[in-house]
Amino acid sequence: MPETWATLGVDLHLETTRAGGLRRGLTDALRDAVRTGRLAPGTRLPSSRSLAADLGIARNTVADAYADLVAEGWLTARQGSGTRVTERTPARPSSTPHPGRRTPSRPAYDLAPGTPDLASFPRTAWLKASRRALTLAPYDALGYSDPYGRVELRTALADYLARARGVRAHPDRIVICSGFAHGLMLLGQVLRARGLDSLAVESYGLPAHWRLLERAGLRTVPLGLDERGTRTEELAAGEPAGPRAVLLTAAHQFPTGGALHPDRRAAVVDWARRVDGLILEDDYDGEFRYDRQAVGALQGLDPDRVVYLGTASKSLTPGLRLGWLVLPPSAVDEVVAAKGGVDWSCGVLDQLTLAEFITSGAYDRHVRSSRLRYRRRRDALVAELARRAPSVRATGIAAGLHVVLSLPPGGEDAAQRAAAWHALEVHGLHGYRHPESTAERRDALVVGYGTPPDHAWTGALDALCAALAE
Amino acid sequence: MPETWATLGVDLHLETTRAGGLRRGLTDALRDAVRTGRLAPGTRLPSSRSLAADLGIARNTVADAYADLVAEGWLTARQGSGTRVTERTPARPSSTPHPGRRTPSRPAYDLAPGTPDLASFPRTAWLKASRRALTLAPYDALGYSDPYGRVELRTALADYLARARGVRAHPDRIVICSGFAHGLMLLGQVLRARGLDSLAVESYGLPAHWRLLERAGLRTVPLGLDERGTRTEELAAGEPAGPRAVLLTAAHQFPTGGALHPDRRAAVVDWARRVDGLILEDDYDGEFRYDRQAVGALQGLDPDRVVYLGTASKSLTPGLRLGWLVLPPSAVDEVVAAKGGVDWSCGVLDQLTLAEFITSGAYDRHVRSSRLRYRRRRDALVAELARRAPSVRATGIAAGLHVVLSLPPGGEDAAQRAAAWHALEVHGLHGYRHPESTAERRDALVVGYGTPPDHAWTGALDALCAALAE
Repeated sequence: MPETWATLGVDLHLETTRAGGLRRGLTDALRDAVRTGRLAPGTRLPSSRSLAADLGIARNTVADAYADLVAEGWLTARQGSGTRVTERTPARPSSTPHPGRRTPSRPAYDLAPGTPDLASFPRTAWLKASRRALTLAPYDALGYSDPYGRVELRTALADYLARARGVRAHPDRIVICSGFAHGLMLLGQVLRARGLDSLAVESYGLPAHWRLLERAGLRTVPLGLDERGTRTEELAAGEPAGPRAVLLTAAHQFPTGGALHPDRRAAVVDWARRVDGLILEDDYDGEFRYDRQAVGALQGLDPDRVVYLGTASKSLTPGLRLGWLVLPPSAVDEVVAAKGGVDWSCGVLDQLTLAEFITSGAYDRHVRSSRLRYRRRRDALVAELARRAPSVRATGIAAGLHVVLSLPPGGEDAAQRAAAWHALEVHGLHGYRHPESTAERRDALVVGYGTPPDHAWTGALDALCAALAE
Repeated sequence: MPETWATLGVDLHLETTRAGGLRRGLTDALRDAVRTGRLAPGTRLPSSRSLAADLGIARNTVADAYADLVAEGWLTARQGSGTRVTERTPARPSSTPHPGRRTPSRPAYDLAPGTPDLASFPRTAWLKASRRALTLAPYDALGYSDPYGRVELRTALADYLARARGVRAHPDRIVICSGFAHGLMLLGQVLRARGLDSLAVESYGLPAHWRLLERAGLRTVPLGLDERGTRTEELAAGEPAGPRAVLLTAAHQFPTGGALHPDRRAAVVDWARRVDGLILEDDYDGEFRYDRQAVGALQGLDPDRVVYLGTASKSLTPGLRLGWLVLPPSAVDEVVAAKGGVDWSCGVLDQLTLAEFITSGAYDRHVRSSRLRYRRRRDALVAELARRAPSVRATGIAAGLHVVLSLPPGGEDAAQRAAAWHALEVHGLHGYRHPESTAERRDALVVGYGTPPDHAWTGALDALCAALAE
């Protein structure tokens, strides 16, 4: 065994014949060594040059393997101090130098919902798409964009959304926005300009979204919730002054986790036709369904009555700030006007890269591997809870990046205190309940199993089970 | 001479010993061949593989040279149809497929102000920075950012702005925004929330900016203009109900092109101190001064009274959608609150890349080479006009990406008609005048000499001279 390698105490078997070749073999061997503790936290790895020399392989192969493992969070690279095994508690980068700002102490484990596994962001494939997009782009693609967003991305999305989500899309009906929140702000302005002063929402959702709408001048009116999903028939009660628009997470209610019943899907579209209304469909995690083929977007039922809102925040990363609206023809001009005369929001380089990422097939590949990753985590979570905390019930469909764990009355606060004790960040369901909702008040935890990187997942699951078993 | 090369009719002398080596030599030779017409528009180039074989050099060298020339606009790459010499009129990419949308016919030459030479965007250096930034970033840098923006970028900017623009900056006082317009929107909200209902502006400026402010609920009140710049003493007239905030392009008035007189720089800061007011300094092109060292930012005089607004739109490209505010401590929290609880606006990948681009020195290098490019163009424009249209006077300081050409009364409309006849896009000064301004009404053209790519510059200048000589 080569010398530098021997100092690490790692028994490395590079199987050069396996799929993926040397790089993959080295990456896997190193990951195993870290996972099992043979490479202790803080250990400094040999330089890529010396390790490559010892192993008799190309330096780039070692550098690539290191880069993969840095991306996944197993290793940490710092200029000037080389590459080290990440300390056991994933070291969140403190936002130094920030003398004047409070940086809240971070929990060791993070199961807060809303973020995908950032360590699995496909950096290499993204950079490749970026290189190709930037090499092929005509020079004036780099300037001010029109407010629709880059045509390359709208064209790629029209094809992808039709194929993957059953959305009836055409590039001309798509407007790019900087994530869901921006899209919702634009739609809020459009609805307000149409004279609406309220919007129906679900009983449970993200308070930040309700606040955005209220800032735009729209009151949010919660609909009820039962075992068939959001009680859309309350819309049809049809007071003339009732809301003529509704925001729905039809495929996977956020956060309670159900799917809207098929009867209600049809009925809410009928309602929109009857009252000249509009449905805003928040399809935040539509790609991730584990027990069956995902239910297509509601938008497919009536593209003239449904605005489809999609985002790269769950499928890739929220840091991209890229989302998209698929709009009824009548609404396109209104949204573009709300956005302003030129696109002041969305960077074109990421738009061009995402277009290339989608058309090259890399997006599909990433979604497939993410689906497998999250499905495995969900299965592990359900199995482990059944064993260690059998009184806790996982509810909702097998989909997305989070699960709702039902608790006995009064159990939510106790569970959150226990989680804090185990240095675990996890949200209670109460915080997602609309203040004016009349829906039943449930005690539950909203567990974002998609959030942690692979190297922290097992520890996070263990902490969760420990907290709930108490 | 190799065969494929011979078919192009190009006599290529690759001086392998010159600086930059083979790639640079090949790039220069090809550029010359296109410029002089030896390679006719539309000519299809040999594949990089076959040309490399013929020349006996590496394929990558040829591919890199092609990529450079595509980036500069001399060549056009289309998947499936290879690389061709760009057609003489720079083919603006039509936004096909857009059956339903009107695409206005593009002029052959574009001297509209407001955009840098997009063909000189440093694609290779940017991709390199992007690779490095994305390789080194810890995984959670890719997620939701706090509303300040990435600390890596704020740290790089604090250093750069102090050095290049004399800004007194600290990362904690910087907030990243998606370009100047977004920054202005945020500040508009802050001023409105402070109870202001009006803002002083300059007599000439961008109507789109005034509209943004008016949408935020602020009336814009134009100040006068004379040979010493904007008449800031009109602020000091000091009616109690007068505006307590002012938006200024102090270093290089947009578009009239003067610099604010030093006495007025000091006086306007005094005014702000006296009335508890705020100065918004729009430093859109502060890096580009040709006749002397650039005047430092007004912000340096009193960081507690001046908000500095900077942008990558002129120094790199507006397509990045990246700008920055350097704020008085009192205003930081207000701007962050206006931005929202998390950063819903600015993509982190471009932020991380720009941070790396700045700290690696690539930004300085690009600014230096751009300064040289624009300075040469400005000199050529002034010299050529003096020869061919001596009655036209170039006004304003030698700075930035545009020049104002003074015309005799009534000359503006005639010049614009003549320009249209020569397929030249150029703006008149009237369109930049605030509707309530009492400043003298001047006839002039606002010529954006930074806009065209190198290969179209000579033709654009020729069209301008022809239009003005009539």
